[in-house]
Amino acid sequence: MSSANVSAEQLKLFIERIETLEEEKRGIADDIKDTYAEAKANGYDVKTMRTIVRLRKMDTNARAEMEALLDTYKAALGLEI
Amino acid sequence: MSSANVSAEQLKLFIERIETLEEEKRGIADDIKDTYAEAKANGYDVKTMRTIVRLRKMDTNARAEMEALLDTYKAALGLEI
Amino acid sequence: MSSANVSAEQLKLFIERIETLEEEKRGIADDIKDTYAEAKANGYDVKTMRTIVRLRKMDTNARAEMEALLDTYKAALGLEI
Amino acid sequence: MSSANVSAEQLKLFIERIETLEEEKRGIADDIKDTYAEAKANGYDVKTMRTIVRLRKMDTNARAEMEALLDTYKAALGLEI
Repeated sequence: MSSANVSAEQLKLFIERIETLEEEKRGIADDIKDTYAEAKANGYDVKTMRTIVRLRKMDTNARAEMEALLDTYKAALGLEI
Repeated sequence: MSSANVSAEQLKLFIERIETLEEEKRGIADDIKDTYAEAKANGYDVKTMRTIVRLRKMDTNARAEMEALLDTYKAALGLEI
Repeated sequence: MSSANVSAEQLKLFIERIETLEEEKRGIADDIKDTYAEAKANGYDVKTMRTIVRLRKMDTNARAEMEALLDTYKAALGLEI
Repeated sequence: MSSANVSAEQLKLFIERIETLEEEKRGIADDIKDTYAEAKANGYDVKTMRTIVRLRKMDTNARAEMEALLDTYKAALGLEI
């Protein structure tokens, strides 16, 4: 078997592994979408839920600092807190 | 002049118009990036500035409702407000 | 138990389900990144691999039509085919 | 005038400069969208036009190499060229 054939076979294996992973990823992305849709059907606000998920990823101190800084900037710009 | 030539010429004009606009858009995007960099060099936090820009786009009532809902969700999840 | 408490508990369950799914999704995204990195270490070009993944998703006829149209536009614009 | 006031004023100027630039950028993005819509109304394919815009940005040699590599990978994967 020539080196070019081996290489083509190896390339195909990489491509197929990526396609399998991409399909799994799409499946999970669909599950996330369905979960938000179910929450929405139960009366929850999706946009606010996304903010909560983002905030819960942060360290408590980092979050407190970020929120204090935002309050300072809002006051500076005259946005009601 | 054949219809295909006219069509090729028209396609070229559309493409060139888009390329000119894309270049202008990149120029402005660079200006925005430079402005944030200048603000950062003056001690401002870029991420918080981006949040402020987003909040100022919102109607005051819509923003107040969004922030009240976020506080409710944070309390429900035990995130210190 | 008050309705507000039930609601808070339900919200928490939705948020936790989403967080679990997001974590799985990040894990798979990392696997995809690692697979491309391994292919690159074996001498393959990542950008071209991404194009191949995209082309293989298409129906053969749709791909043939897309490529014929692209050749027509390239000829019209004087891009060597 | 206190340093805090000066700082609030400076922050406001940065924010307003960014907002003006963002508005200009949105205007140009709308012009691009309108141009594609006009081309589409004249029978051109928008997706293929986007590919052309991307190809014309590339150096001729870089494009030739990219296209040769893609043909090699397509042959390796059994995608008709």
